[in-house]
Amino acid sequence: MASLFSRIAKGEIPCHKVGEDDGFLAFLDIAPLRQGHTLVIPKLEVDRFFDLPHDLLAAIMPFAQEVARRIQRVVPCDRIGVSVIGLEVPHAHVHLIPLDRMSDMDFTRPKLAPSNEELAALAERIRNA
Amino acid sequence: MASLFSRIAKGEIPCHKVGEDDGFLAFLDIAPLRQGHTLVIPKLEVDRFFDLPHDLLAAIMPFAQEVARRIQRVVPCDRIGVSVIGLEVPHAHVHLIPLDRMSDMDFTRPKLAPSNEELAALAERIRNA
Repeated sequence: MASLFSRIAKGEIPCHKVGEDDGFLAFLDIAPLRQGHTLVIPKLEVDRFFDLPHDLLAAIMPFAQEVARRIQRVVPCDRIGVSVIGLEVPHAHVHLIPLDRMSDMDFTRPKLAPSNEELAALAERIRNA
Repeated sequence: MASLFSRIAKGEIPCHKVGEDDGFLAFLDIAPLRQGHTLVIPKLEVDRFFDLPHDLLAAIMPFAQEVARRIQRVVPCDRIGVSVIGLEVPHAHVHLIPLDRMSDMDFTRPKLAPSNEELAALAERIRNA
């Protein structure tokens, strides 16, 4: 069965998209650690990040760089942090998280719960940044 | 003044090296979250990860993949996690962390304190894996 993220990539499940190219999709995390917390996924369904084929591993960070720059134009922060954990959804994904202090990257913290309208508005601002 | 990591890359400060090519160096974190916790740095001194030039951003994860595979041959784990935070040393660096549960990536946990001899022996095993 297709992973949750494959179904998002195919458009079967909606997402708040902030970027896309042939290989990758970027969309807002609906339970963000910070406003602007974004997931970057390869459209190819592979569980472990380091099992991605070489061409996707080489392309994912340049793609994420463009997304990160647009996030940072909308969400002021010192930098954009990166985390790949991957224990929850068996489809490789990169977290991009606006970062000012170490605790911004602490996945044990309670998540935010923005409304669907807030996420849609933020995604539009990032897409247009 | 050169960053701590530039001085390590130049060999002015010793490290427990586990991998190296023209662009990157990988060495054991001396205050690891888990045994095998490794830092991958570009030899070029750039503070923020997403300010790295395109060629280094494209090359860093394929380099890290090779290192991650060798770590995982020595340190049994479900997968190798990735984290880029970068608030402590102003030289872009990627944490590679053996991962079985979310808490393995929690940077607020107390760090381990392996001896120099233990780190040297582990680095040798990973280099040879």
